[in-house]
Amino acid sequence: MRWDQVTVVGVGLIGGSVGMAARARRVAGRVVGVGRDHRTLARAVELGAIDAATTDLADGVKDADLVVVCTPVDRIAETVLAAAARCRPGTIFTDAGSTKGNVVEGVGGKLPAGVHFVPAHPIAGSEKAGVEHATADLFDGRVTVVTEMYGGVAPDARARVEGFWRALGSRVVYMMSPGDHDRALAVTSHLPHAVAAALADIVPPDWLTVAGPGFRDATRIAAGDPGLWAAIFLANRVPVLSAVNAFRDKLAEFYQLLDAGDGAGLVAWLAEAKRGRDALGR
Amino acid sequence: MRWDQVTVVGVGLIGGSVGMAARARRVAGRVVGVGRDHRTLARAVELGAIDAATTDLADGVKDADLVVVCTPVDRIAETVLAAAARCRPGTIFTDAGSTKGNVVEGVGGKLPAGVHFVPAHPIAGSEKAGVEHATADLFDGRVTVVTEMYGGVAPDARARVEGFWRALGSRVVYMMSPGDHDRALAVTSHLPHAVAAALADIVPPDWLTVAGPGFRDATRIAAGDPGLWAAIFLANRVPVLSAVNAFRDKLAEFYQLLDAGDGAGLVAWLAEAKRGRDALGR
Repeated sequence: MRWDQVTVVGVGLIGGSVGMAARARRVAGRVVGVGRDHRTLARAVELGAIDAATTDLADGVKDADLVVVCTPVDRIAETVLAAAARCRPGTIFTDAGSTKGNVVEGVGGKLPAGVHFVPAHPIAGSEKAGVEHATADLFDGRVTVVTEMYGGVAPDARARVEGFWRALGSRVVYMMSPGDHDRALAVTSHLPHAVAAALADIVPPDWLTVAGPGFRDATRIAAGDPGLWAAIFLANRVPVLSAVNAFRDKLAEFYQLLDAGDGAGLVAWLAEAKRGRDALGR
Repeated sequence: MRWDQVTVVGVGLIGGSVGMAARARRVAGRVVGVGRDHRTLARAVELGAIDAATTDLADGVKDADLVVVCTPVDRIAETVLAAAARCRPGTIFTDAGSTKGNVVEGVGGKLPAGVHFVPAHPIAGSEKAGVEHATADLFDGRVTVVTEMYGGVAPDARARVEGFWRALGSRVVYMMSPGDHDRALAVTSHLPHAVAAALADIVPPDWLTVAGPGFRDATRIAAGDPGLWAAIFLANRVPVLSAVNAFRDKLAEFYQLLDAGDGAGLVAWLAEAKRGRDALGR
């Protein structure tokens, strides 16, 4: 057993899946879930996501070896700091936030001595929110990005956290800069969400009959939780605005080629995009 | 057996799948494939997509009861007219084009007496082109739109063609106006393709490591064949340009809300899109 007690704070889709994966893969002797809603926590125990539950953060983290903060991105830093004040020296923290700059800014330089935080982002998820949709294999074959903290992360804490995310089935990619992470995710995750939402929103309901599998794929992520996503956009505001601008410029090229009836230009434009997409695989 | 001989003109992903489905479901006594490339046709026979093949259009359609034209959209009308001049009286034509206005314009009023054309669009496909990717169940559970011709379609011809597409597994939706079809598909299919291509194209290769399942879904269609798609865009130019404009306006709302840091506004904007997407199902 690699960790005696893992505490998951925020037992939704991601936190619930962390708990299920840690239990199924025997990564933790015991998984404790901390949340705000008694009913959700009871359901998480029922579903096998956690062994025990509490609504008291201090109580939930006091015996933890590893604390995984899975709250919405706008509450991660404050949760880490509140929990860090109530845990044993030597406790290691990680998180699962889709943005890293705001978390690192919020936590950096404010941790008690002997408590370590290693920022992480498992790039996995679903348009379905809540522990009801959690699965033990959510991280299987996915990438988890681990970033640096301002002031550095203790190498052994980082190694242990990377081992944790690997043990849950993911491949760990180390990106030194939280800013690099956020700029990359603005383009690969946050922008596509805004684009899918805009697409889904301009289709009149009576045209949905003729929406085929391509439209379903292209807009699936638009079913994600509005509150969680608004928090992500706000936490990564400037990189997302830049990504929207780059995307607009690219789409304007398409508009001009089509407006001009330039067939050869359209083929070249589409072929370049296809090369990019083909590099990614199915 | 509903048809003695069905001839498929253009034996790629769609034509090959029409042949496979018609054979597997015993809709046709014999499926003849017409194409331009001997090797592709031989492969189509090998794969069981067609019973026999020819590169001679007249030869392929002379004994057909039903001709299904599955060429790229810019060649459908000319192919229908060329074949109609060489077939028996009473032969029925349909097509599988993603655009209908250009086909109806091209064919309308030019058919020999006794030959019927019923425009159709099976909304099924894949980002993979070619008969190698054809499957007998491509149309299963999908929608096929059947539209009117200028001057009308003989009711019994329409009934038989609708029966054909149903027999292949699809649900038939009748839209009187080819223009309505094209405006709806501009938004539900053509615009999403351009958007997916623009997304795929602005991601630098070294960021693809952090592209998760959401990005894959949102950009999958961008791997489609550039030539086929350029032809579709050009055939549906004005409705696609309008769809791009509507989409740009919707994305501009997002940009303004995020730029202003308007959290409540972002949640409302995302919630409206989520309602649209939820109405569609997975």
